[in-house]
Amino acid sequence: MEEALARYKRVYGLEPSERVTVRDQHVEVAFLPLSDTQLELVQPMDSQSGVARFLEKHGEGLHHIACLVEDIQRELKRMEDEGVELIDREPRNGPHGKIAFIHPRGSGGVLIELVENTEGRFLQA
Amino acid sequence: MEEALARYKRVYGLEPSERVTVRDQHVEVAFLPLSDTQLELVQPMDSQSGVARFLEKHGEGLHHIACLVEDIQRELKRMEDEGVELIDREPRNGPHGKIAFIHPRGSGGVLIELVENTEGRFLQA
Repeated sequence: MEEALARYKRVYGLEPSERVTVRDQHVEVAFLPLSDTQLELVQPMDSQSGVARFLEKHGEGLHHIACLVEDIQRELKRMEDEGVELIDREPRNGPHGKIAFIHPRGSGGVLIELVENTEGRFLQA
Repeated sequence: MEEALARYKRVYGLEPSERVTVRDQHVEVAFLPLSDTQLELVQPMDSQSGVARFLEKHGEGLHHIACLVEDIQRELKRMEDEGVELIDREPRNGPHGKIAFIHPRGSGGVLIELVENTEGRFLQA
């Protein structure tokens, strides 16, 4: 928990609004506020898709979370300097412009996507 | 995709704001708007936690998504009538009141939690 909280603060600027112990569930939890969020359903078009390989390996399920950034090159550079393990050192094309993936190995097993908010089509978080 | 879109519409009232083909990634995607979202970090307190079993089996990673509801008993009844496979037919205690889990088997491999918004501590979606 402490390592993950420190990482979300360092890399994403997120700080917990609350930390709670849930005795019934035998867990401790921390909440990190986000906003202007959406679910994205993703279906592979063919077997070459990374998503097709994910489905083959894991079956259907939660795949990644995505965060908007203003300047994706700057954020990738910042993360690389931080020692964050990247999948993409250079952005590639997403549905709404430049995207890049951060490797789950350095991110608590969570695949994280950066999305450059070029067209102003998403509200700022 | 069509099955998942129909399910998110039927069960959660979510409709896509946009559907896009991303040729570079070999995928088709659909976006379902949400709002007032937060990340929750969860750490098991002991080996009896369901989360401890998840970690043992899968390692760290994305665990579930949660949706606020006004009346959890009513939603569980509605879902049961819909034929949705539930983990909890009766609510249990979460950090902020009543919660219940929906089985990933009937939800595209995604573990979904309902959270009753009793204290008005979250904004309405």
